[in-house]
Amino acid sequence: MPEQTIQTLRRQIDEINLQILELLNKRAAIASEIGRLQTELGVQLYDPQREAEMLNALQLANQGPFSNDVVKHLFKEIFKASLALEEREARAKIIVQRKAPNDTTVITLPDGTQIGNGSFEVIAGACAVESFEQMDAVGALLAEEGVKIMRGMAFKPRTSPYDFQGLGENGLKIARQVANKYGLVVVSEIMDASQIPMMSDYVDIFWVGARNMQNSFLLKALGKVRQPVILKRHFSATLKELIYSAEYIAAGGNTQIILMERGIRTFNEETRNTLDIGAVPLLKMETHLPVIVDISHSAGRRDLAIPFGRIAKASGADGLMVEVHPNPAVAMSDAKQQLYFDQFKKLMVEVRATARPERAF
Amino acid sequence: MPEQTIQTLRRQIDEINLQILELLNKRAAIASEIGRLQTELGVQLYDPQREAEMLNALQLANQGPFSNDVVKHLFKEIFKASLALEEREARAKIIVQRKAPNDTTVITLPDGTQIGNGSFEVIAGACAVESFEQMDAVGALLAEEGVKIMRGMAFKPRTSPYDFQGLGENGLKIARQVANKYGLVVVSEIMDASQIPMMSDYVDIFWVGARNMQNSFLLKALGKVRQPVILKRHFSATLKELIYSAEYIAAGGNTQIILMERGIRTFNEETRNTLDIGAVPLLKMETHLPVIVDISHSAGRRDLAIPFGRIAKASGADGLMVEVHPNPAVAMSDAKQQLYFDQFKKLMVEVRATARPERAF
Amino acid sequence: MPEQTIQTLRRQIDEINLQILELLNKRAAIASEIGRLQTELGVQLYDPQREAEMLNALQLANQGPFSNDVVKHLFKEIFKASLALEEREARAKIIVQRKAPNDTTVITLPDGTQIGNGSFEVIAGACAVESFEQMDAVGALLAEEGVKIMRGMAFKPRTSPYDFQGLGENGLKIARQVANKYGLVVVSEIMDASQIPMMSDYVDIFWVGARNMQNSFLLKALGKVRQPVILKRHFSATLKELIYSAEYIAAGGNTQIILMERGIRTFNEETRNTLDIGAVPLLKMETHLPVIVDISHSAGRRDLAIPFGRIAKASGADGLMVEVHPNPAVAMSDAKQQLYFDQFKKLMVEVRATARPERAF
Amino acid sequence: MPEQTIQTLRRQIDEINLQILELLNKRAAIASEIGRLQTELGVQLYDPQREAEMLNALQLANQGPFSNDVVKHLFKEIFKASLALEEREARAKIIVQRKAPNDTTVITLPDGTQIGNGSFEVIAGACAVESFEQMDAVGALLAEEGVKIMRGMAFKPRTSPYDFQGLGENGLKIARQVANKYGLVVVSEIMDASQIPMMSDYVDIFWVGARNMQNSFLLKALGKVRQPVILKRHFSATLKELIYSAEYIAAGGNTQIILMERGIRTFNEETRNTLDIGAVPLLKMETHLPVIVDISHSAGRRDLAIPFGRIAKASGADGLMVEVHPNPAVAMSDAKQQLYFDQFKKLMVEVRATARPERAF
Repeated sequence: MPEQTIQTLRRQIDEINLQILELLNKRAAIASEIGRLQTELGVQLYDPQREAEMLNALQLANQGPFSNDVVKHLFKEIFKASLALEEREARAKIIVQRKAPNDTTVITLPDGTQIGNGSFEVIAGACAVESFEQMDAVGALLAEEGVKIMRGMAFKPRTSPYDFQGLGENGLKIARQVANKYGLVVVSEIMDASQIPMMSDYVDIFWVGARNMQNSFLLKALGKVRQPVILKRHFSATLKELIYSAEYIAAGGNTQIILMERGIRTFNEETRNTLDIGAVPLLKMETHLPVIVDISHSAGRRDLAIPFGRIAKASGADGLMVEVHPNPAVAMSDAKQQLYFDQFKKLMVEVRATARPERAF
Repeated sequence: MPEQTIQTLRRQIDEINLQILELLNKRAAIASEIGRLQTELGVQLYDPQREAEMLNALQLANQGPFSNDVVKHLFKEIFKASLALEEREARAKIIVQRKAPNDTTVITLPDGTQIGNGSFEVIAGACAVESFEQMDAVGALLAEEGVKIMRGMAFKPRTSPYDFQGLGENGLKIARQVANKYGLVVVSEIMDASQIPMMSDYVDIFWVGARNMQNSFLLKALGKVRQPVILKRHFSATLKELIYSAEYIAAGGNTQIILMERGIRTFNEETRNTLDIGAVPLLKMETHLPVIVDISHSAGRRDLAIPFGRIAKASGADGLMVEVHPNPAVAMSDAKQQLYFDQFKKLMVEVRATARPERAF
Repeated sequence: MPEQTIQTLRRQIDEINLQILELLNKRAAIASEIGRLQTELGVQLYDPQREAEMLNALQLANQGPFSNDVVKHLFKEIFKASLALEEREARAKIIVQRKAPNDTTVITLPDGTQIGNGSFEVIAGACAVESFEQMDAVGALLAEEGVKIMRGMAFKPRTSPYDFQGLGENGLKIARQVANKYGLVVVSEIMDASQIPMMSDYVDIFWVGARNMQNSFLLKALGKVRQPVILKRHFSATLKELIYSAEYIAAGGNTQIILMERGIRTFNEETRNTLDIGAVPLLKMETHLPVIVDISHSAGRRDLAIPFGRIAKASGADGLMVEVHPNPAVAMSDAKQQLYFDQFKKLMVEVRATARPERAF
Repeated sequence: MPEQTIQTLRRQIDEINLQILELLNKRAAIASEIGRLQTELGVQLYDPQREAEMLNALQLANQGPFSNDVVKHLFKEIFKASLALEEREARAKIIVQRKAPNDTTVITLPDGTQIGNGSFEVIAGACAVESFEQMDAVGALLAEEGVKIMRGMAFKPRTSPYDFQGLGENGLKIARQVANKYGLVVVSEIMDASQIPMMSDYVDIFWVGARNMQNSFLLKALGKVRQPVILKRHFSATLKELIYSAEYIAAGGNTQIILMERGIRTFNEETRNTLDIGAVPLLKMETHLPVIVDISHSAGRRDLAIPFGRIAKASGADGLMVEVHPNPAVAMSDAKQQLYFDQFKKLMVEVRATARPERAF
């Protein structure tokens, strides 16, 4: 008997479901119309005061069995859904978000090298520019290995104000000179919007470091430059935060953005950070931007470079970044993670031998 | 004009809101009745197959403007709210959950000491029982300081199988002997359900260590003992996980449970763990159980014991746990965090001088 | 002039360096001999009391310029190095530690399948045994895809005592029956040492879940069984903790251990856990045990299974574990992460297409 | 017999210890002299090339039983200790570091209010300046409660470029006007060095937000202003990183720095961040700067404000920061954590009732 009663009651619920559905859609259509009018008036769509009033009215009217809290919760969900509908057009404006499965941003560098077109590009070089000799050795190595993009870091964000802060503009000059000699492209870290004019003379790709990932003044300024920007994930940023940081740049007009996964801060002790390789397929799902993997800072130790290089390529990333130095033992920064030249050559062999999947996800 | 139209449309929405509200409550009442019948039949309340069918029907009927995804999302929220209502009675069975503002579990120990009655109890002693002399020194100190509850750890969970694993039953004998001599209560860690009968001869309070916080076999077995249980939070457990682990014990019939916050594993480098003092008010909000703070393992260094002791008391906790050893430098485990006797005395002075608030939240 | 003086002073330092070196080695040889004698006497090598006395003597004798703290620190390092030397033989007893580059544990299952021999094995099946029909469908799928090892989980560790806890021995019977029908090997989670005799009748591989990774009673008991053991990393365990947990099993006599990386708990929001793929090369460097990757619990969402499968194989792991269910939407646990059958088939295609490197590091 | 031999061997070790000690100190004195000469020459003290050469020489000379790795490790420790000695003077230049137990920076605000002198100051106000009416209501409340320092946030760092970014200079005008009306001091967040001149007209204390904690360009620029600076810990920064960020400001000449603990990003789900209260005593141990606790962002929920306020004061902090809004439900940001006025009044009662310890550690 109870089974039959349950069947009857379930049919009643089915009917109520459809009635609620109808009302929800009717409500949504009206809310949409209001949104259209508000947009005409230049009024913000989200109106918390109005929501508070509606919730009050509903709570006064509520007879149960749902408690006021539940009613409030359910209607907040309905409000959110309506708002989302109203904002659909607005949302279409989230520039970096993937809108179609094959949506892809391809970045073309001055020498014709492309990132995001299905190839796997290696970005390499010393942690910091230290001298012409050091950079010249690195440049020759990259040219020999067919690597096109060279690190030319002249401003180093450091934890301590007393640590080596980079050679500044002199470092950029060295990097440019070496790059020109070997036909390479220079990527260099920018730390403040005020550096843009000067750096633009030397640099092909701007690099935003982890510590500046949410420096919105800098991001907005980079929305106005013509060079591509590598945006490095902060070691504690969620993917949502990284994507919105990219949006700060894109909103300014520059959509030539490359996202970089670089390891996150966790309890792990064996590595400097923890490579969050899942970020590659997730960022590819959510955005149409190229994604590369920093295999140096994620590990913080050179004996992981080869496995991390293989993993990066198998993950569907568009490239990797690795530090290499003619004499890592005496490097002025990041001595433990920069590769020796012979290690770098082995890395390149292994990376070339690894297949890149057609899609990351 | 648009302002007027917006006003008109908003009144329409207000009406629809009320209609939806009425239907939601009607639906909830029927769902509740189904839940009652299902409970009679001994059928699980949550029926994902039925939900899948309802969602299918709604998606077939949906004409927009809400997308099927939005419809699915909103109805899942409605289902959840209904299920929550159906489970209200079931939820009333979550034994450890606070049901009223003044709900309080007070635990009375064999010597009459109470935990959870508004006082602030100190649990202290060496990390491990090492010898009679060591324990005797500690026992004398506790008696002198008016501390009632002594650590008597004879089974030590250790990372390495080759580290000191405790003195076993001999350690328990020593602890009992010293406790009897000084009129103290013994708390001791249990690692496996099979130890219950033997340990029951020596131990006044069972202690479940972090590593066993989700050992459901052990928790269930402790649901059957007459002694209180201190349940230590795993260093990576959410509060929800800790509360459900307490529920495993309570479900077996033993509600004499003391929760222990002991620091969580984070990126912090200066301390062994990170004291999550917010857990005290949160656990007190959610449950009616006493909550104590382990100021030794959270810090992992003795120079933080005094500030942590003050903080623990000001947080509204029911007590603290601290390690003290006659000669920490030669302790067989946790040498860096066990207090010297004079430090312990200073700690007691500072803790007595700190006010305990009437309520934790 | 100062440059010359610096040169002279440096030569003096070079000489002193060599004198210190000589004394250090002389000291080490004597300490070694003491260690040998202590081992004969059955005395523990580490003697904190003796260290304390030596440090006291040194501090009394110290005239600077090094402060007593520095002297203490340097001699503690020397003590540690000496102790390490004394323990070299003891260390050789850390059974699971890799001792030579080609050191490899190969595990042979009852049907002849091998793990750790360079192949890449897939372990698959539903999160939990729910019914014969469900398991039969899974078994047929595995047989069709050439998968040899089937999940047959009958005891489910759950956060809440009121969640589905598995079918118990009946579940094992079903798993065994289906495995026999399709020529599969059964792996099943054990939660307490007391289950060993009963489970041994049904199970080919024991599985220790994350919550029991440091349950030393269970680990020690599994050191005595003849079946291989999969040891799953706790989501907050360091690699060192995982390796020592394996050592608990190995120390009991069972070295047939498979380590499983399964994602760690971080701040990431998009996934249930964060796949720590770096654990694969690191565990391979440190131990000679096979390492597999759980691509279901690390992601907690089925749309990441294919990229994670590729990544796992490219990392040099010895296999992967994945959950698959005939109807994930109605699964009694882990509904969001179990694969549909067609997804599983696609995963197998992609995994077969990915190359496994000869070495993980 | 072996016991006697052990005694004899131990006496030999005691002698060698003293010889090593003597050589170490002799070595240190020479290294110190080299350091003095290098400082005269303007040469960096740390010379990795020289270290590499010394290690090579030692490894060539090493006859064992210590392995070359151990020798390398021990000498690296000796080098580090020598370098530390050489840098002792340099270290004396770490401006923010505590040098004596009673070292204290006291900051005096324009109205004479002092922070760091043993009192407990409350900083309060809305998350953002939204309107004159809103700020006027807050100002009146603060004046009534005797609070001296008001939030006047006009530039809001936001995750999304499309979220409310603050009222800009108009917001600062409102804040200044309200502050003048009620005799309050204004603290306001600065996001870029270029804002300093404009903001200086309105603001009594600059606030560096978490996202800019390692923006060295901004920090250096704030080293040149006359106003005090509140430096908020990034939610993932170690204490060392925070202290060095303060040093960037101090190195520029401005030592009027207040450190702010504000909760760290962990796996906890119940709170926005996890209040790391241990940071208060640790920062006080390490620096002489005032430390305050942000009880709003650490919890992210207003029902924890009162316990967190009590805890902050008991921890020995110099003050707390809390958000309060006339109508939190409609606030343009952080709606869930801003206090209602009556909650704020209750918080003030509880905070006044809590004793502040004389010392944090």
